[in-house]
Amino acid sequence: MSTITVKAYGAESTTADLKEMSIARREATPKDIEIEILYCGVCHSDLHTAKNDWGVTLYPTVPGHEIVGRITNVGSDVSKFKVGDLAAVGCIVDSCGHCDSCKKDLEQYCLNGFTGTYNGNDRHLGGHTFGGYSEKVVVDESFVLRVPENLDLAAVAPLLCAGITTWSPLRHWNVGPDSKVAVVGLGGLGHMAIKLAKGLGAEVTLFSRTPGKTEDAKQLGADHVVISTDDEHMNSVKGKFDVIIDTVPYVHDVNPYVATLNISGTLVLVGYLGGLEPILDTVPMIMGRRSVAASLIGGIAETQEMLDFCGENNIVSEIEIIKMQEINEAYERMLKSDVRYRFVIDMKSL
Amino acid sequence: MSTITVKAYGAESTTADLKEMSIARREATPKDIEIEILYCGVCHSDLHTAKNDWGVTLYPTVPGHEIVGRITNVGSDVSKFKVGDLAAVGCIVDSCGHCDSCKKDLEQYCLNGFTGTYNGNDRHLGGHTFGGYSEKVVVDESFVLRVPENLDLAAVAPLLCAGITTWSPLRHWNVGPDSKVAVVGLGGLGHMAIKLAKGLGAEVTLFSRTPGKTEDAKQLGADHVVISTDDEHMNSVKGKFDVIIDTVPYVHDVNPYVATLNISGTLVLVGYLGGLEPILDTVPMIMGRRSVAASLIGGIAETQEMLDFCGENNIVSEIEIIKMQEINEAYERMLKSDVRYRFVIDMKSL
Repeated sequence: MSTITVKAYGAESTTADLKEMSIARREATPKDIEIEILYCGVCHSDLHTAKNDWGVTLYPTVPGHEIVGRITNVGSDVSKFKVGDLAAVGCIVDSCGHCDSCKKDLEQYCLNGFTGTYNGNDRHLGGHTFGGYSEKVVVDESFVLRVPENLDLAAVAPLLCAGITTWSPLRHWNVGPDSKVAVVGLGGLGHMAIKLAKGLGAEVTLFSRTPGKTEDAKQLGADHVVISTDDEHMNSVKGKFDVIIDTVPYVHDVNPYVATLNISGTLVLVGYLGGLEPILDTVPMIMGRRSVAASLIGGIAETQEMLDFCGENNIVSEIEIIKMQEINEAYERMLKSDVRYRFVIDMKSL
Repeated sequence: MSTITVKAYGAESTTADLKEMSIARREATPKDIEIEILYCGVCHSDLHTAKNDWGVTLYPTVPGHEIVGRITNVGSDVSKFKVGDLAAVGCIVDSCGHCDSCKKDLEQYCLNGFTGTYNGNDRHLGGHTFGGYSEKVVVDESFVLRVPENLDLAAVAPLLCAGITTWSPLRHWNVGPDSKVAVVGLGGLGHMAIKLAKGLGAEVTLFSRTPGKTEDAKQLGADHVVISTDDEHMNSVKGKFDVIIDTVPYVHDVNPYVATLNISGTLVLVGYLGGLEPILDTVPMIMGRRSVAASLIGGIAETQEMLDFCGENNIVSEIEIIKMQEINEAYERMLKSDVRYRFVIDMKSL
């Protein structure tokens, strides 16, 4: 298969800083779209992959799955896009297309395994996929999204992961104007959860450990902020929320939040992979038909729906633009939660 | 308030056997129905209450919340029933009637606390309520159920708790002809879960720790039996079930069952109150939008729906009829799971 060589930024090993490198992309096949990447958001998964925190990183690794850009080439069978269009790519660049999940537009749960935008098994070239910290990306049109023209393009990038990861559970659990939604954690995912839930018409509460985030949360659209370390404050919202989007990425006690679910309410974990400690108490669950669930990014159709919704409602991420060469420093700052609320790389800098 | 004195069977203390006693029932008020109890099912909660296993028993206690009988008196405002009708009473004899839950026919989640058929706060006489191990019961017509005439009356009794406890989650999680349902545990609840899920048209699987229950499960309507202690057998059903009804009443590892849930599937605990140990792993949950939920009995409208459904589909419980005087021995046998699948007291014996 013919390839083109493009500049990228990646890590050669667990301990190496990210630096400029060259990678191969396939030449656009009849179904493919070639995109010049203009902006790429920086997700915590990028950092975990670069540092091999999950033990599955294939090196060299080029992170980045919050990609927006402009189409520079389309294959002969491409019908939905043309050269010059804005386009976006999220966390998924391929899936089997024929399993029950794919047939239901749930590519993120492809029973044969979806292909991640980076660190996935490249079904075309072999080897592994390279992400959006690069000049260009070539993706099957089925996995390319249309971008509303009215939004700040750089601030659209984080919608492709942080946005869809919170949108998907809000939609699956039927959040709308009558819903009371709470969000646990105010980071990249949390700030999008507030904006999207508010956009859907819900009454939105942020759970925060400290009062310091109250002003920010309200500016983002939160109606209320509840200090989760204040027992009295927590008691005052017992039984209140229909849906809780829990974005906390590390082990934490979910029991105090379960207690704040309404009858038939659901707490959805979107950030934490691991065992629930302290142990989950079923008593408040059985006494109110409450659920604890978890959700992973979102499907392609759902991602398009979210982007269209954001276009109609002028919703974008809060971002800080960096140059590609500042990525290692940005990772350091992310580890200290020193970002409001997402870094986005201006790819011109590469 | 005027009362009538009726014979009952109950316990005077934690250590006492159940024995004959007299209790007061209110005389039927305009909204009340007086029922001569013909049969009363024996639920594990009866035993736990008699022995004060949950530490909340009010003595003397008269258990029993799977009540069927014939109406002997109706208040002047009663419209739905007449003397001579069959009638049933389940786990709930009162609720506030005006909270969000009550307004949604979810009296089991009454935000002001429903009144249990026994060991509840009696809103009419004060003191605590007495259950169905007695000659008669007097209940507000709003909490009295109609009984299909075509069913074996004794075998209807367990529907009022074991039946509705499994029916409610099957309905809430939309089980129907396209569903794959699994049931964990084959006792009073489990055997009803199999019958009701099958009645709703689902493909039904029983998880059992030993092959000894295979024949029984299939006779009850299960399509498959999976031996949960056989890793290979468990692997063969990974990702299969839309809904799992987990009836196990003691602490157990739910992780192997979560792994058998389909994408977007839900495991519903209906038997266990306490902490989930070993700890619940969120990885298989997030990788398939899987939920762990819990559910408590069911509302009055839903209980009527279930009874009507059972009438139309000839579904009743599998029972062993005992005399009232055999209750202490029956409790001993229940502790050894020596019952297929529910004891029902023939109240003539009292």
